[in-house]
Amino acid sequence: MRGYLITFEGPDGAGKTTVINELIKQLPKTLQERTIVTREPGGSKISENIRTIILDPENKEMDDRTEALLYAAQRSQHVSEVIRPALAAGKIVLSDRFIDSSLAYQGVGRDLGVEEVKQINDFGTGGLEPDLTIFLDLDPAVGLSRIEKERAGQEDRLEQEKLEFHNKVYAGYSELLKLYPDRIKRVDANLPIKDVAANSVKIIRKQLPDIFM
Amino acid sequence: MRGYLITFEGPDGAGKTTVINELIKQLPKTLQERTIVTREPGGSKISENIRTIILDPENKEMDDRTEALLYAAQRSQHVSEVIRPALAAGKIVLSDRFIDSSLAYQGVGRDLGVEEVKQINDFGTGGLEPDLTIFLDLDPAVGLSRIEKERAGQEDRLEQEKLEFHNKVYAGYSELLKLYPDRIKRVDANLPIKDVAANSVKIIRKQLPDIFM
Repeated sequence: MRGYLITFEGPDGAGKTTVINELIKQLPKTLQERTIVTREPGGSKISENIRTIILDPENKEMDDRTEALLYAAQRSQHVSEVIRPALAAGKIVLSDRFIDSSLAYQGVGRDLGVEEVKQINDFGTGGLEPDLTIFLDLDPAVGLSRIEKERAGQEDRLEQEKLEFHNKVYAGYSELLKLYPDRIKRVDANLPIKDVAANSVKIIRKQLPDIFM
Repeated sequence: MRGYLITFEGPDGAGKTTVINELIKQLPKTLQERTIVTREPGGSKISENIRTIILDPENKEMDDRTEALLYAAQRSQHVSEVIRPALAAGKIVLSDRFIDSSLAYQGVGRDLGVEEVKQINDFGTGGLEPDLTIFLDLDPAVGLSRIEKERAGQEDRLEQEKLEFHNKVYAGYSELLKLYPDRIKRVDANLPIKDVAANSVKIIRKQLPDIFM
C-alpha cells in the first residue's frame, strides 16, 4: 500500500486546521485509521523548536532570507523524521501547510523569488512534492479579521504582517495555482466548515481515487 | 574607509577563539579600535537561538540537511544584522568560523556536496566572501583530545562526532585550500598561541596591506 501526501494551503485565517479535523470525520473509518495529521512550521520536536524562533513576535530583526532558510530547515526535518517514514508505511499524511506556503509567503510575499525559494526547499526535502494540495480560498482581508477576533493581540510574527503583505501572499498562491494546475485544487473557504470539508473530500476522491479502493 | 572580513577556520580544538583574542593584542592600537570579533554559529540574538538548536546534544534526530539549512539560516542573519553593517562602517570583522565551516563540515563531513551547500549559503548571504581566511591547521585527533580535556563531557552535538567524521572535515578543509588558494592561508596551530597569532598577523599584513596603512 503506497502512502499519500495531501497538503492544505491558504491565507492565514482560512480555517485549515478546522477543515482538516472535520474532513477526517467524513472519511471512511478504514481511511481514518490510515491517516495522520501534521503541520508546518513544526511537526517534530526539532521543527517545533525552529517554529518558535520563526513565529516569535520578538524576532522583529529577522532577515527575510533567514526566515526562508528556517522554514526550509523545519521542512527538511519534518520530511525526514515524520513524512517520509509515514509515506513508507502507507499512511495518508494530511499536512497543514507545506512547500507552497514558502513559495507564496517567502517567494512572493517577501519578494525572494519562487524558483530560488523552491531550490533551497528541494535541497532539504529531496524535492518531495505533495500528491494533492487543497487551496482554501479566502479573501486575505476576511482571513485577517477572523484571526484578529480569535487571537486578540496574540498574533504570531507572520500574522502580524499588514494586509498589503497578505495580499501579496494571496497573489503568490494564485500564481502557484497556474503553475501547478494538476496538483493544486481550489476550494471556496467562505462556505460553512462542513461544506468546505465535504468539497475537499470530493476533490480527494476525484484526484486520488486509489485511496478509496 | 572600507571594511574587511577576516575569518578563522579549522578543526574543533584548533584554538580559534584564543588565537583571535591574542591576535588583537598584537595589532596596532588604532586597528584594535576598528576591529570587532564575532562567531558562528551565532553572532546575533536570532542566530544564537538557532545555534542552541544546532548544537544541543539532545537533538540526535537532526537530519544532515536540516543541519546545513540551520547553519545557512544563522549565517544569513549574522551577515545582515552584524557583518554587513560593520563592513559598511569600515570595521575589521574577525569571525570565528564562517562559510568554509559549512563547506567542510556539511559539504564534505556530511557528504552533502560542497557546491550544493555553497548554493544555500549564497542564497542567505548574497554570496559574501571573506577578504581573507586563516586556516588553523591541526591534526583533528589532537584537536579532539584538547576538547575532551577542556569540556569533559560537555561537548556539543558536533564535537561529539567520532574521529572519522572530524577526519573527513579535515579532508574538506584541505580541498578548500586547493579551491581558494588566494583567499585561504594555512597557519600551523601546533605552535604556542603567541606564535600562531603572530603568524596570522603576518599573513594579514601580507595579504591585506591596506589595512595597516
